[in-house]
Amino acid sequence: MSGRTKYLLDEDSMPTQWYNLLADLPVAPPPPLHPGTNEPIGPDDLAPLFPQALIAQEVTEQRHVDIPGPVLDVYRLWRPSPLFRARRLERALDTPARIYYKYEGVSPVGSHKPNTSVPQAHYNAEDGVRRLTTETGAGQWGSALAFACASFGVDCEVWQVRASYDQKPYRRLMMETYGADVHPSPSKETAAGRAILEEHPESTGSLGIAISEAVEQAAADDTTRYALGSVLNHVLLHQTVIGEEALRQFDMAEDTPDLLVGCTGGGSNFGGLAFPFLREKLAGRMSPVIRAVEPAACPTLTRGRYTYDFGDTAGLTPLLKMHTLGHDFIPDPIHAGGLRYHGMSPLISHLYEQGLIEAREIAQQDCFAAGVRFARTEGIIPAPEPTHALAACVEEALRCRESGEEKVILTALCGHAHLDLPAYGAYLSGAVRDNALSEEDLARSLAEVPHLG
Amino acid sequence: MSGRTKYLLDEDSMPTQWYNLLADLPVAPPPPLHPGTNEPIGPDDLAPLFPQALIAQEVTEQRHVDIPGPVLDVYRLWRPSPLFRARRLERALDTPARIYYKYEGVSPVGSHKPNTSVPQAHYNAEDGVRRLTTETGAGQWGSALAFACASFGVDCEVWQVRASYDQKPYRRLMMETYGADVHPSPSKETAAGRAILEEHPESTGSLGIAISEAVEQAAADDTTRYALGSVLNHVLLHQTVIGEEALRQFDMAEDTPDLLVGCTGGGSNFGGLAFPFLREKLAGRMSPVIRAVEPAACPTLTRGRYTYDFGDTAGLTPLLKMHTLGHDFIPDPIHAGGLRYHGMSPLISHLYEQGLIEAREIAQQDCFAAGVRFARTEGIIPAPEPTHALAACVEEALRCRESGEEKVILTALCGHAHLDLPAYGAYLSGAVRDNALSEEDLARSLAEVPHLG
Repeated sequence: MSGRTKYLLDEDSMPTQWYNLLADLPVAPPPPLHPGTNEPIGPDDLAPLFPQALIAQEVTEQRHVDIPGPVLDVYRLWRPSPLFRARRLERALDTPARIYYKYEGVSPVGSHKPNTSVPQAHYNAEDGVRRLTTETGAGQWGSALAFACASFGVDCEVWQVRASYDQKPYRRLMMETYGADVHPSPSKETAAGRAILEEHPESTGSLGIAISEAVEQAAADDTTRYALGSVLNHVLLHQTVIGEEALRQFDMAEDTPDLLVGCTGGGSNFGGLAFPFLREKLAGRMSPVIRAVEPAACPTLTRGRYTYDFGDTAGLTPLLKMHTLGHDFIPDPIHAGGLRYHGMSPLISHLYEQGLIEAREIAQQDCFAAGVRFARTEGIIPAPEPTHALAACVEEALRCRESGEEKVILTALCGHAHLDLPAYGAYLSGAVRDNALSEEDLARSLAEVPHLG
Repeated sequence: MSGRTKYLLDEDSMPTQWYNLLADLPVAPPPPLHPGTNEPIGPDDLAPLFPQALIAQEVTEQRHVDIPGPVLDVYRLWRPSPLFRARRLERALDTPARIYYKYEGVSPVGSHKPNTSVPQAHYNAEDGVRRLTTETGAGQWGSALAFACASFGVDCEVWQVRASYDQKPYRRLMMETYGADVHPSPSKETAAGRAILEEHPESTGSLGIAISEAVEQAAADDTTRYALGSVLNHVLLHQTVIGEEALRQFDMAEDTPDLLVGCTGGGSNFGGLAFPFLREKLAGRMSPVIRAVEPAACPTLTRGRYTYDFGDTAGLTPLLKMHTLGHDFIPDPIHAGGLRYHGMSPLISHLYEQGLIEAREIAQQDCFAAGVRFARTEGIIPAPEPTHALAACVEEALRCRESGEEKVILTALCGHAHLDLPAYGAYLSGAVRDNALSEEDLARSLAEVPHLG
């Protein structure tokens, strides 16, 4: 076993292909359906929203997809990202477990999101697109897309959930510094936004509403398209660069994970780390348990219904077969803004149904406790999202202390908390509550899920 | 010439020694004086404030100082840091100049400060010190020390200039997340603070006042010592890891800088990059021009007096021969909080007097313009401090466009702006003013500089 704690690939070892899990799945996931006909959608249905290259990536069964040169060129600003062994955390927990974390906070916006915003901006720019629209909650995805658009000379227009727009100005300022236009959502710029405001003038918004606004704008204009930061196959495909690197770094460490843990909102960070390891597992080359961790306030996989639902509130998107809490679900405010989406990636949902991954929910206070412990031992303050995975790591490491098991745990540390420090302030002052979703709220929101023939 | 844009050292090539410029200077800088006797101070005078190892480093003439293993172990979390060629900025400026930047924003707190906070916490912990006190302005140094103290199990107590404490809570929250206690300065905890508050109950503080408070607390208690984030020789020594890495990275790039540019507040970021290159210059192996850039609101080198002055407002520190605006100087509020100190490192001041470095001042709006341009081309949003150096780079690159000169420029990008985004917001909305220091204010403040025999 190496005594090192950091595993850095040199640039020449950086992956030059993304990995497509669809090529290796024993059972294919159910297709998206057209909401008018309930028939599987075709490429033409997506053409108003996405460039051809991304539509092709959404459905390809090719095992590997080449990463274009201009994308690699931007990736190099922060990739390959480091894999660390968390020796200080292990010592503090007095555990025989070996804990590794793959750190994506080294990107210019501090999260894993640019792994997909950069190729999305590239393919759109190549297609002559002048402007990209998108939605953002806390602002991680919006700032990643703003950064990517600046890199490829594309305009960027973001609908940000009003609650975050008003209360968390740092992310908005980051988007504006990169040159993006940011609107609070619901806004008066779109029919979807105006309809919501008419009924609820004080609406603080939701990701589902913001998606409706961004999609509506993109569909209305030939030189404008739409970009999504999670959920869809092509997004998860781009994120597999994380897991491909981590596999090579485990070779350097001469170690093999027994357990992978990642937080799930839409699923892109989790899938990005897990899919290449799942390929190895399906091929019988390793056998890690793969565990998704979600907030108790937005427990999509563990308590949502697996059914066809809309990706947005207004019902403008195709119907996706996924674990959903209902497309007009609005979770209680929690600090992990990236984990508040009502649905889950259809691909991740399918894996869960197939028994290829596990899932569990954790409440906020345990997550922050793990985040503070991690900051004071390992030195990096984790974003609130990955503290969910860290809480599950800590729990497992303490279980190993009891059992004496030398389990090897790998977690996705998908970002740092520089722009989320008020959340830590709230936790340290005792103001953070657990906000688990109630049975009544869940039943009410699931009643709105469409019933298909 | 290599086509690459990032130059990464592998971990085995990370420097294991700091470089001490004192060993190579043709003329030694004047010593610090005891304020009571006006005689050079000895190690005993500093013992209440610093551990023996740091006092020894303050005066050693040894050319290289070994970096202790536990310090290297923490450095590895983010070091070696990358050197980038700013090809996108070059293209945007249409310049034949080649611009390189050494990026220190990869540290867990987003700046170069941990290069010295980590060894300072280490040497103190080794000496049995239980608590470190310090001051901080915008909070970069305070958060770096809080991070380092958490790594070595030392308590950390920070006096933060009240204006920042009130208006910029993110840095305070970062310090608290790492476990530090943070007081607004002036505070009622110290005699120095109480004296200021009695005269000016509404005082928003200054770095000089906060230093007085931190020094007073450290001197009053045997298990408590003090840590300074810039100015002193041992601090600049620790920062030379930046320049040592950059020299090796220029070897990889097969290039040689013609011009080094760094921003100066107390001088540690500038000295850290420049000193190893200055060694090469003194030895005749290269001949770069070395240029310090400071804000027009706090123009220490360019308009300050070179004389003995106190490092703090209350006059508790030794007298340092340096460029000073007067120890009770309070600059107009500017966004580059790290560049608001009234004095300059005695070592940097000496180099300037000896003609070994140049200096110039730049006003705020030009700095932010350069910062936005850099963000939208290179993808990293620079902290307000290094935008001063970037503005000077842009100016030089445009000069090269006129002359056709292929000048090679190296700049110190000492941090990112994740915690300074409101400053960019102010700039983008037109609210940033230039705030150059007036002749009257300068004369008034210099009148308070002590007159020595």
